[in-house]
Amino acid sequence: MVPTITWRDNYVVMIDQRKLPFKENYVVCKTPAQVAKAIRKMVIRGAPAIGVAAAMGLALGANRIKSINRLTFERHFLRICEQMAKARPTASNLFWAVQTMQEVLKKHPTASVRELKDLLRTKADELLAADQAINRAIGLNGQTVVPDEATVLTHCNAGALATAGYGTALGVVRAAWEAGKNIQVLADETRPFLQGSRLTAWELQQDNIPVTLITDSMAGYLMSKGRVQLIVVGADRVAANGDVANKIGTYSLAVLAKENKVPFYVAAPLSTIDLSVPTGDEIPIEERDPREVTHSLGQAIAPAGTTAWNPAFDVTPNRFIEGIITEKGIARKPYRKTLKAMKSQSA
Amino acid sequence: MVPTITWRDNYVVMIDQRKLPFKENYVVCKTPAQVAKAIRKMVIRGAPAIGVAAAMGLALGANRIKSINRLTFERHFLRICEQMAKARPTASNLFWAVQTMQEVLKKHPTASVRELKDLLRTKADELLAADQAINRAIGLNGQTVVPDEATVLTHCNAGALATAGYGTALGVVRAAWEAGKNIQVLADETRPFLQGSRLTAWELQQDNIPVTLITDSMAGYLMSKGRVQLIVVGADRVAANGDVANKIGTYSLAVLAKENKVPFYVAAPLSTIDLSVPTGDEIPIEERDPREVTHSLGQAIAPAGTTAWNPAFDVTPNRFIEGIITEKGIARKPYRKTLKAMKSQSA
Repeated sequence: MVPTITWRDNYVVMIDQRKLPFKENYVVCKTPAQVAKAIRKMVIRGAPAIGVAAAMGLALGANRIKSINRLTFERHFLRICEQMAKARPTASNLFWAVQTMQEVLKKHPTASVRELKDLLRTKADELLAADQAINRAIGLNGQTVVPDEATVLTHCNAGALATAGYGTALGVVRAAWEAGKNIQVLADETRPFLQGSRLTAWELQQDNIPVTLITDSMAGYLMSKGRVQLIVVGADRVAANGDVANKIGTYSLAVLAKENKVPFYVAAPLSTIDLSVPTGDEIPIEERDPREVTHSLGQAIAPAGTTAWNPAFDVTPNRFIEGIITEKGIARKPYRKTLKAMKSQSA
Repeated sequence: MVPTITWRDNYVVMIDQRKLPFKENYVVCKTPAQVAKAIRKMVIRGAPAIGVAAAMGLALGANRIKSINRLTFERHFLRICEQMAKARPTASNLFWAVQTMQEVLKKHPTASVRELKDLLRTKADELLAADQAINRAIGLNGQTVVPDEATVLTHCNAGALATAGYGTALGVVRAAWEAGKNIQVLADETRPFLQGSRLTAWELQQDNIPVTLITDSMAGYLMSKGRVQLIVVGADRVAANGDVANKIGTYSLAVLAKENKVPFYVAAPLSTIDLSVPTGDEIPIEERDPREVTHSLGQAIAPAGTTAWNPAFDVTPNRFIEGIITEKGIARKPYRKTLKAMKSQSA
C-alpha cells in the first residue's frame, strides 16, 4: 500500500487522491501554503489525513521562518497556523492538529527558535506515527462488532488513504479480516468525488478483501433485502452529543439502517471528537464548487449552465448511531457522557 | 421539446436518450427487433414511453409480415409479441402494450390481414396520442398537491422523455408551473444512467422551470434541513397493494421522506398498475450490466476488474406512499381497494 503522506528531503509528499486509481501521481509541497492548497483541492482528504498533513505543513512552515528571534518566529508561525486552519471548515482534526502544534510553543516557553523547529518537526512525526497506531486500535476495538459472516457497507473512503495508514472504518474491516472473519464489503461509489469507487475499492482490492461497488442510491434497497449486516463509516467531526458530520450521504444511510435494523457504527479517532461543539447543528458544513456535481471526473454529466448544489457533508443525529468506535473503545449512548469520559482519558 | 418517439416514413424514430443532452441523435427502427433492442439498450426508457414504443414496434412488425393468410399472420404476430415482451422485465407498460395490441386481433376475428395491419397501426397511434392526454390529466390531478411555494424533489426522469410527452412526475411539475405556482425542482442525478442530470435537468431548462441538480446522496440531507416540500416520482410497475417498483434509489427517498415528514407521491398512468401482481415482492427487478456502475458515461470510475452490482429498480412499500396520481385522480390508502376501483373505471 502506498503511503498517504510522507516526508521526502524535508518536503511533504502526498499521493494525489484526485487521480487515483488511474494515475499514481505525487504532489510535493515545499511550503505550508502548498499543503493548505493540497488539502483544499482534495489532493489529500479524510479527516485524520488532513490533520496529519496540517501538522506536517506547519513543521515545514516553521522550518522556513528565517528569524532566530523567538517572538518574531512565534508571530510568523501563528500566521501560518491561521492560514492552515482555513483550508477546510468541517473536519475537526485540522483544528486539533493546528492547536496541538501551537501547544508545542506554549509547552516550551524558553526554547530557542532552532529548538522549536526541531520540536515541531518531532511533534508532526509523532502525529503521523500515532495516527497509524490509533487506527490499529480502532480496528481492534471495532472488529468485535463485526459478525463472523457479514457484508459490511461503507461510504466514502475512511481507509488507509484517509489516514496515515490502515484506516478508521476500513481499519475495522481490515482488523475483522485479519481476525479471520468471512466478510465482504459493499462500497458506495460516493458521488461527486467518487471516493468509494476510486479509493475504497482500490484499497480493498490491494488487500484482497472482497468488495462490490454500488451506486449510492442502491444501499437502501440492499438493506431492505437483508443483504447488509453492518454499516461502518468514518467521521469528519463528532459533536459533544454524538451527532456526526461525515461525507454527504451518511445521514441517508443511517436513516435507512434504522428502518432496516442494520447496526450503524462510526469509527473515528478521539481527535475527530470536538467537545466544544454541543450538537451537529453547530458544525459548519462545507459547500464545494457545483462543478463537482455537474461533472464526473472532469466530464460533463449535465447540460452546460446547470445550477447545482454541493454540500460536502451532512450531519447524522446521534439517535441513529449504535456506537462510536475510537482508539479507547466503543462509545455508546448517552454520548455526551461517554465521549467526554473517553476524551478526558486520552488527555 | 423534441418528441420522444414518432413515425417517419412508416419507420419508428426515437431520440437517443443515451446521448442526451450532449448529442441529439436519432435512432431509426425498421423492424420490431430493432425497437426491442432500442428498449433494451435504453435508447428509449421510462415505463410509458416503453409501452408506446412496444406498440409502435408491433405495428411495424405486423406491417412487415408477408402472408395474407390470417392464421399465418397471427402466428407470426404472436411471435413478434413474445420477443417484444422480453425486452425488459420490470415496467408493466411493456406487457400492457403488447396485450393491448394482441386484443386488436381478438376484437376483430373476421378482419383480413390488410385490415388488421391498419387496425394495429391505428391502435399504436391511439396509444401514442392517449399517453400525452393521460399525462396532461395526471398533471392536472397531481398539481393540486403541490404547494404554492415549493421545492419539489424528483428522481430519475419521469418527464416528456419517459412518455409520449409532458411526463408523469414532471407532468405534475409542469401543470403546477402552468397554474402559476412558484416552484423549483431538485433533480437527483440518478446514477448510474444519469437520467436526472442528463434528461430531467435538460427538459426543465427547456421549459424555463428552475431546477437545481444534486447527487443522489444529497436528497436526504436537504429533506432534514426543510428544503424539500414535496417528492414526486414516476413508476415502472405498481402492484395491486400499491407497492411501487421504480428507479433504484426511490425506496431510499421514500424512507427519508417519511422520517422528515415530506409528502411522497407517485405519478403513473393506469397502464403502470398491474393488478395481477399482489405485492412488490413479486415484481421482477432487472439487474443490468455492472459496467454501468463501474463507468459513468463510458468513463471508468473504478479500478479495472472491480465487481459491481446493478439493480435497475427497487420496490417502495405502500406505507411510504402518500398517494398515487393517475389520469383518473389520486389513489390513496388502502391501495388494494382504490387502485382496483380506478382500474375498473378505466376498463
